[in-house]
Amino acid sequence: MKCRRCSELAQVRLPSHHTGFCASCFETYFLRQVERGIHEHKQFSKEDRLLLAVSGGKDSLGLLLALSKLEYDVTALHIDLGIPVSSQSARSTVEAYCAAHSIKLHVLETTEKGLPIPEVKKRVNRPICSVCGKIKRHWFNRFAYENGYNVLATGHNLDDEVARLFANTLRWDQAYLAGQGPVSPAEGRFVRKVKPLCRLTEYETAVWCFLNGIEHVLAACPYSAGASFTGHKKLLADLEERSPGMKMQFYEHFLQRGKPAFQAIRAEAPPLNECARCGYPSSMEVCGVCRIKEQLEA
Amino acid sequence: MKCRRCSELAQVRLPSHHTGFCASCFETYFLRQVERGIHEHKQFSKEDRLLLAVSGGKDSLGLLLALSKLEYDVTALHIDLGIPVSSQSARSTVEAYCAAHSIKLHVLETTEKGLPIPEVKKRVNRPICSVCGKIKRHWFNRFAYENGYNVLATGHNLDDEVARLFANTLRWDQAYLAGQGPVSPAEGRFVRKVKPLCRLTEYETAVWCFLNGIEHVLAACPYSAGASFTGHKKLLADLEERSPGMKMQFYEHFLQRGKPAFQAIRAEAPPLNECARCGYPSSMEVCGVCRIKEQLEA
Repeated sequence: MKCRRCSELAQVRLPSHHTGFCASCFETYFLRQVERGIHEHKQFSKEDRLLLAVSGGKDSLGLLLALSKLEYDVTALHIDLGIPVSSQSARSTVEAYCAAHSIKLHVLETTEKGLPIPEVKKRVNRPICSVCGKIKRHWFNRFAYENGYNVLATGHNLDDEVARLFANTLRWDQAYLAGQGPVSPAEGRFVRKVKPLCRLTEYETAVWCFLNGIEHVLAACPYSAGASFTGHKKLLADLEERSPGMKMQFYEHFLQRGKPAFQAIRAEAPPLNECARCGYPSSMEVCGVCRIKEQLEA
Repeated sequence: MKCRRCSELAQVRLPSHHTGFCASCFETYFLRQVERGIHEHKQFSKEDRLLLAVSGGKDSLGLLLALSKLEYDVTALHIDLGIPVSSQSARSTVEAYCAAHSIKLHVLETTEKGLPIPEVKKRVNRPICSVCGKIKRHWFNRFAYENGYNVLATGHNLDDEVARLFANTLRWDQAYLAGQGPVSPAEGRFVRKVKPLCRLTEYETAVWCFLNGIEHVLAACPYSAGASFTGHKKLLADLEERSPGMKMQFYEHFLQRGKPAFQAIRAEAPPLNECARCGYPSSMEVCGVCRIKEQLEA
């Protein structure tokens, strides 16, 4: 197979696009797909102050490199969860990467915020991944809001988005279907959330990291039994193999034709409260994160 | 495993219901599920004059037996498509079955209506299955309307419905998602369409036919490359195996939470025309079936 752009020998095969690229043209392709996702969905512009949530995995570090190359005003935020060994390793990976590439980095420790994850795991009788996710989302948003970043980006890729959409669709969850997508608009103390990798698969992001020599964290979190939606991702990979391009089509058509239907019937949903403790948006009187803190303090 | 109802040895295992039944209690279960589907979705009552489209396959013959046992006022309609060997075999299967069970049967020949399917296949440059389906749906409805049947039933089972829903969802087809379900209300010359097997899987219907000694047509149509949605059905079977009950949940939640969203945004869709040739509803000036006839007459 020849590279579609330069006709040299292709090194990366992309069946969903019925094509392949050499390493250098794949770089161009990847950056153009990031740009296209950003522009098509009006995610942000060069004028926005962007905070990127960086775990140390391939998606967030790969996106950090792409946004730097594309010359966006991006700052990294890493949350140190205080999990023995794994958190130290993730943190030092991110610190080394940002130092080597002269990228601004903030590190926030959940332990300092009264939420060491090992302690949360011991005390809260719910799946730790969903609790930890809630805490991270709260602090990513809060840090952005309190420090003047108007856009919060995450490294969710097309496979993440499609697997989540599939799970939401199996349940026909109206609220989640009305809200899912590459952009969640700012509202009160919620800053705008964006997903610049929404047009790129896990495989493409992995290739991007490999070709750019990015050393990212490989080990899974010791508290998680595996990545989320593993079963759905396998099923969707089978579907993609049968019908290349299906994942992207499912996602794009949802954004064009599915989401608007759910947004329309959710239009009169009540607005969010402000949490009585922290002041951040919540559907309850006290937000989920403050309730976890209350459990730990009790 | 023991039968859930009578504690005898179970002969039919139903993982999606976390249970199993002996042959006799499976009979009770099957009929109750048919009744439940009919009542929950207000499909029809004992007062309605019901026409059942009967191909000779397990679903339509199995449903014919169930509706007779449940003492609904049901008449069978078989459409003879005029396909050599296969149509004769299907017709004689249906005729023998209805004669043996004293069930009223009408047979309509598409050849008499100017639409012999082998000729249609030669002259119409589109996939024959979709064209043939269009012709059958037209004549099932038209026969019901012209002969005073106010409800038209088909043997679509839960697997058919879920595979179709999955296909419609992958494309987020708003019109199809607004219209799919076990009941399509009457509108103009469209009689009410119903699917009494909507709570029963292909497997359950096959077991029902086997236990009742129903001799149904096994051979696939020689013009079709295989049953529709084969790939989707396999994928959904994998999902069901991972999460028993998921197919039913996907379908039921769609009816409760998904379909209303699409119906709401489709509310202002223009009403159907009457076909200038046959007078039956159509989105075009001349309906699809009359256009096929025009092609054959040309």
